[in-house]
Amino acid sequence: MKKALVIGVGPLNGLGGQLCKKIAQNNFEVFVAGRTKISVDKVVDSIVQDGNKAKPIIVDSTDENQVKSMMDEVGSGLDFAIYNVGNNTPGKIIDMDPSYFRDSWESCCFGGFLFAKEVINVFLNESTSGTLLFTGASASLRGKANFGAFNSAKGALRNLAQALAKEYAENLIHVGHVIIDGGLAGEKIQQRVSDFDQRVKDGRLMDIDSVTDAYMFLYNQNKNAWTFELDIRTSKEKW
Amino acid sequence: MKKALVIGVGPLNGLGGQLCKKIAQNNFEVFVAGRTKISVDKVVDSIVQDGNKAKPIIVDSTDENQVKSMMDEVGSGLDFAIYNVGNNTPGKIIDMDPSYFRDSWESCCFGGFLFAKEVINVFLNESTSGTLLFTGASASLRGKANFGAFNSAKGALRNLAQALAKEYAENLIHVGHVIIDGGLAGEKIQQRVSDFDQRVKDGRLMDIDSVTDAYMFLYNQNKNAWTFELDIRTSKEKW
Amino acid sequence: MKKALVIGVGPLNGLGGQLCKKIAQNNFEVFVAGRTKISVDKVVDSIVQDGNKAKPIIVDSTDENQVKSMMDEVGSGLDFAIYNVGNNTPGKIIDMDPSYFRDSWESCCFGGFLFAKEVINVFLNESTSGTLLFTGASASLRGKANFGAFNSAKGALRNLAQALAKEYAENLIHVGHVIIDGGLAGEKIQQRVSDFDQRVKDGRLMDIDSVTDAYMFLYNQNKNAWTFELDIRTSKEKW
Amino acid sequence: MKKALVIGVGPLNGLGGQLCKKIAQNNFEVFVAGRTKISVDKVVDSIVQDGNKAKPIIVDSTDENQVKSMMDEVGSGLDFAIYNVGNNTPGKIIDMDPSYFRDSWESCCFGGFLFAKEVINVFLNESTSGTLLFTGASASLRGKANFGAFNSAKGALRNLAQALAKEYAENLIHVGHVIIDGGLAGEKIQQRVSDFDQRVKDGRLMDIDSVTDAYMFLYNQNKNAWTFELDIRTSKEKW
Repeated sequence: MKKALVIGVGPLNGLGGQLCKKIAQNNFEVFVAGRTKISVDKVVDSIVQDGNKAKPIIVDSTDENQVKSMMDEVGSGLDFAIYNVGNNTPGKIIDMDPSYFRDSWESCCFGGFLFAKEVINVFLNESTSGTLLFTGASASLRGKANFGAFNSAKGALRNLAQALAKEYAENLIHVGHVIIDGGLAGEKIQQRVSDFDQRVKDGRLMDIDSVTDAYMFLYNQNKNAWTFELDIRTSKEKW
Repeated sequence: MKKALVIGVGPLNGLGGQLCKKIAQNNFEVFVAGRTKISVDKVVDSIVQDGNKAKPIIVDSTDENQVKSMMDEVGSGLDFAIYNVGNNTPGKIIDMDPSYFRDSWESCCFGGFLFAKEVINVFLNESTSGTLLFTGASASLRGKANFGAFNSAKGALRNLAQALAKEYAENLIHVGHVIIDGGLAGEKIQQRVSDFDQRVKDGRLMDIDSVTDAYMFLYNQNKNAWTFELDIRTSKEKW
Repeated sequence: MKKALVIGVGPLNGLGGQLCKKIAQNNFEVFVAGRTKISVDKVVDSIVQDGNKAKPIIVDSTDENQVKSMMDEVGSGLDFAIYNVGNNTPGKIIDMDPSYFRDSWESCCFGGFLFAKEVINVFLNESTSGTLLFTGASASLRGKANFGAFNSAKGALRNLAQALAKEYAENLIHVGHVIIDGGLAGEKIQQRVSDFDQRVKDGRLMDIDSVTDAYMFLYNQNKNAWTFELDIRTSKEKW
Repeated sequence: MKKALVIGVGPLNGLGGQLCKKIAQNNFEVFVAGRTKISVDKVVDSIVQDGNKAKPIIVDSTDENQVKSMMDEVGSGLDFAIYNVGNNTPGKIIDMDPSYFRDSWESCCFGGFLFAKEVINVFLNESTSGTLLFTGASASLRGKANFGAFNSAKGALRNLAQALAKEYAENLIHVGHVIIDGGLAGEKIQQRVSDFDQRVKDGRLMDIDSVTDAYMFLYNQNKNAWTFELDIRTSKEKW
């Protein structure tokens, strides 16, 4: 049984949680990695109750040692890895605390670097032609007023992902970047907006199950037809 | 049974031919549209021999009346349409005959406009939330020396496709654009290069069957998780 | 005295007219090319009254023979050429007459091809390291609902310009593309909107004199520091 | 006399040094900010010897307190600020020390955030419609094998700059981003390559004096015709 590792897992009905569920249904042993034990455990329990395999890892993605320990826990057999860390960080630059700007980059990009370095080294050491995917956003592509921190951090991650895709293609490692353009119909937005149900009904929030299909699609591509990047949005999204 | 229409079908083992085959295998009646009767018939025969449904249409995609007649032949029930017309047109601008530059645009872009107009009108008239896909290329994204005609024509098509995606999203019509970056392992390249087999063996040409999976993936997305654009290339492609 | 040629000249206070004025002030003999004699003559008269040199050329930029005749009229000594043809062409694709879509491309892109081919051949024949600039728009970069025709045509021109820039750099011909993002404070918009004066006062329309400075800036760059593309907008423009 | 501040000044004949010289010639008092006292002093001396005004500031651009102290030294009257910090940081991701990746971001992007925050606050407090420019690179636009750290850091800076441009346009603050595509004919490359003179002779390195003209051009634009971004390269550069 092949192993998959998803880092950046929060609520069960969020993107990270649903990625774990979907991948487990596709016959992987899934390592569910996140900062919050209660969330991670919930995802693992749900997968195990489905009769599939999952293990929890509590980890701060921006801490090199913790990332290395995580890789040790995963052990050999890794074939699919997803970096899904990083929340939106709104705010005007003139009011922004430098630590806030830095933290945004640490979680969106620096953690992605640490993760990529370890994952690719595992793939290379085991001669695995694995897949490494990153979660991006419309913010990855341009700057926008009031979102300077997030735009900058996501832009940093995208260029890193593109460099990785080119750098390790010769080793048959598939690196991809999924541009999530808009809100997801998951717990994060549910807790932030009062009209969540209406938004879902109107089709203004992305269906997470469908989004996870895109990650599986990328994983299943063979080396003669790889996609680096695709965008995803609802039919209601203005872009 | 839903209907699909693919325009720009040449050799059976080319992208257009294989799109028809793949779509027919997914329980569509496929209308196989191209300029050359012998090629179109071969694709139709192959599909019918598989036990699936297909009909030939001989059409010049740049002729408005022929495009309209084609739509009449297809009739009601269309749910999936692909514009796959347009060959690479190399050459330096200073040496280029204006008719050559124009023809490149006519086949890559103007035919795409005629096709889109008719297809979307059918979707709207039948209240169908159909899918309309365009075949793009790396040329769609930028200009390059010696490829001015093709770059220009493909850039024109891409901006048209993006406008369509935004214009008809509210009608639940999914418009997508597939960036084919590099050569395909089909008859066109086979006839042009002497080391075709070696290139296939080396993984330097795209596996067409895998490429057609990307079109099916886009078709199968639901309205809450649409992709407008994805790129495809082999692991060997420099980009 | 060096010669300049600007094609796509309309009202004196429009971009084409003001480009001619500015270039003439910089000691060029300017060939003022446009479709409408009365407009072209007005620009020429204004330049001559300033004590500078200008000649009128009445030309349809989409007609190869007329473009060639224009080049004969200009004769030797051309060093600076600008393609400024092409109006916005709004409209939904499903309602659009094919001739409207085609005309948009003919004026925005095909005329640009004819012009570029002739201008670059003159530069090459005279071993001139001349400058060839194109007027672009935000439409050059992406598609947008209701502007499919214009987006497509301008996207086509941009990729052509980029191919030209790369193709003739070795001949020391500088090709550039100016992205005009928004409305200009000239006669075209003056005739279209009722609150023109208010828009100018609010700084919502671009100052054309300042825009022409950008073209002169590109002309004056030396071969060791060329710009292919720059964008221009007012401080009020949302982008 | 207006004040200008350039941070990221190294050798006199480098981009930072020559920006200071050029700006001083345009009647600014220039604050020359860099890490290395000997380099900064050389630039200041050269400006003063020309009869123009300059003051040295020794500063680590990634240290918030030092950046704040720098702004105190500059005092009121600032109208033009340039962030020119950040060296190329080659290397494969799998071999890269995390501190190397982090340092690349700190100098290219985090310092740019600290600088922008302070500069824009000064502009706002003094109701100055000042100009803030960033030095970018082709790396700002995409990832490339072996340059993941630099690509990521420069991509982060570009998205930040674009957010700033949009965020403070309403305050009439002009933010711009200059894409330097290729090597500059300055001391940095001179010390790195053995055939520097030949490269200069061949026109393969950018003329720094011409590059600084682009920064002055951006500064001189009025609010009704601002450029956010332009690219610069030699006629010999492949792109």
